[in-house]
Amino acid sequence: MENGFRHTAIVGAGLVGCGWAVTFALAGSTVTLYDERAEARQNLPERLRGMLDDLEKAGLANHTAEAFSRMRVCETLAQALDGADYVQESVFERVEVKATVSKDIGALIGPQTIVGSSSSGIPASAFTQEVPKRERFLIAHPVNPPHLAPVVELVPAPWTAPDVVLTVRHALAAMGKVPVEVRREIEGFILNRLQGALLNEAWALYEEGYASIEDIDATVSHGLGLRWAFMGPFETIDLNAPGGVADYAERLAPLYHSIALSRTEPRGWSADLIRRVTEERRQSLPLEKIPERSAWRDRRLAALVAHLRAQDRADRN
Amino acid sequence: MENGFRHTAIVGAGLVGCGWAVTFALAGSTVTLYDERAEARQNLPERLRGMLDDLEKAGLANHTAEAFSRMRVCETLAQALDGADYVQESVFERVEVKATVSKDIGALIGPQTIVGSSSSGIPASAFTQEVPKRERFLIAHPVNPPHLAPVVELVPAPWTAPDVVLTVRHALAAMGKVPVEVRREIEGFILNRLQGALLNEAWALYEEGYASIEDIDATVSHGLGLRWAFMGPFETIDLNAPGGVADYAERLAPLYHSIALSRTEPRGWSADLIRRVTEERRQSLPLEKIPERSAWRDRRLAALVAHLRAQDRADRN
Repeated sequence: MENGFRHTAIVGAGLVGCGWAVTFALAGSTVTLYDERAEARQNLPERLRGMLDDLEKAGLANHTAEAFSRMRVCETLAQALDGADYVQESVFERVEVKATVSKDIGALIGPQTIVGSSSSGIPASAFTQEVPKRERFLIAHPVNPPHLAPVVELVPAPWTAPDVVLTVRHALAAMGKVPVEVRREIEGFILNRLQGALLNEAWALYEEGYASIEDIDATVSHGLGLRWAFMGPFETIDLNAPGGVADYAERLAPLYHSIALSRTEPRGWSADLIRRVTEERRQSLPLEKIPERSAWRDRRLAALVAHLRAQDRADRN
Repeated sequence: MENGFRHTAIVGAGLVGCGWAVTFALAGSTVTLYDERAEARQNLPERLRGMLDDLEKAGLANHTAEAFSRMRVCETLAQALDGADYVQESVFERVEVKATVSKDIGALIGPQTIVGSSSSGIPASAFTQEVPKRERFLIAHPVNPPHLAPVVELVPAPWTAPDVVLTVRHALAAMGKVPVEVRREIEGFILNRLQGALLNEAWALYEEGYASIEDIDATVSHGLGLRWAFMGPFETIDLNAPGGVADYAERLAPLYHSIALSRTEPRGWSADLIRRVTEERRQSLPLEKIPERSAWRDRRLAALVAHLRAQDRADRN
């Protein structure tokens, strides 16, 4: 694999770890998987096979049998790490869990191995300070599920070696992922800060009675979200005024500043508000239907990714 | 047209007005158009024909010749309004311009006619207070371009008759649009408040040097925006935890509250920041390429809407 990783070790093989495993295997890497839960290890081959089948059905992968043959479940962490040039850690998102496994990994890897953590919000400095070879660790945060959504946030700790970020960025890009670089640590990184900003406004609008949850959702899924599926927020506004972003800002910066000024006393999501949101969502979708609807989401996401890839190909030709 | 409008008058026939005209004509309504600029009126037939052709090419419309034959450009406002049961006003977004044209419209319409304004941020109470039949006026704010994006925000003024909102909601839904109801006036309505919240965070992250504009854009267009193209933000988080939104909120509400607390002193978009953003955007896309890229956006948006409609149809079968 050109500039990619030859051998990737997956540590923590839940939904996120499996998504990563499939992604690396399809890109040509040898993949070893380890999960400390014996029962999770047992089900892995079937689960990985199912994910590859779904990708093939959606037109997002071929040669899946070869990819499957490149993956191997290991009985110990040491076996999984042996010979790996890259480790993707995706264990449970608790700082003490991440700290323990990172120490174990740091003690076992060679000096050239890089370790990325799937942490969605905890920065690497919070759990790699005492870790051997800590300069080889960084955050590589995917969007769920990692085998469908292209973006990966790379966030170095203050002690991460700069060439580590560069190497991972190039390797992921060579695999067709879209790595983005968060230059220094910040709570929530970029993706969840952007999501959080929109969510906080959505929850406040609902709390204040301006609209139903269904209507707020429709405003995004039948409006705002359409452009954001193929253009970022900056390009969107740059194309929304004849003179580009400067023209747009001249007209709309005052409105957006005024909106920000109306939200300087954030209340958070109160227990009562969470209860009301939950009730309204459960009327739209009973709790027991969540797994079925999640499978629908993955099918729709796969179809959307296939659509966008085909459009990108057509754009290039 | 079942429960839709029989005869729609379009007042102000720029990009937004033309998008509306095509939308109503395709839904079976007779459409009269008026624009006070004689030169705009002259070019209208060609422009409308072009929009219909593009929709047909994208697989989003058929019978476009019939739709075209239902549209008629008028030389006076009175001619355009004569016999209309619905008026969509899309003149320049300045409060005094909207006030003047609304007064003219109010003086000419019959008692059963409804008037929706395409205003994207100015509430109806700011320009219909002195208008004859003001209880028949409301905001009907589309996303640009209106013939592609389904969502329409309906925002009543305090004096808008409740049945006016209901009638427009039903008529738009019958046409395949997705009307959402903003229950009372608020600056920016829902759509631009949600967009503004995300934009403000994006601009702040750029200002503070956390990431490049290109990487912030990629975080949305290759990550966050993918789910938001077919699910709203509430459904997204409801499906992102096994126990639904309550489970999600328990884990992530503290993070999002903390993010909100870090943004309680909004600086707005300073002139210097606008200059830096503009420079970085102009390196990605020179100013003279904006029209070409905007045409690309409309093609991609049309293709995405066609994809989403096909998926919705498949879901229903």
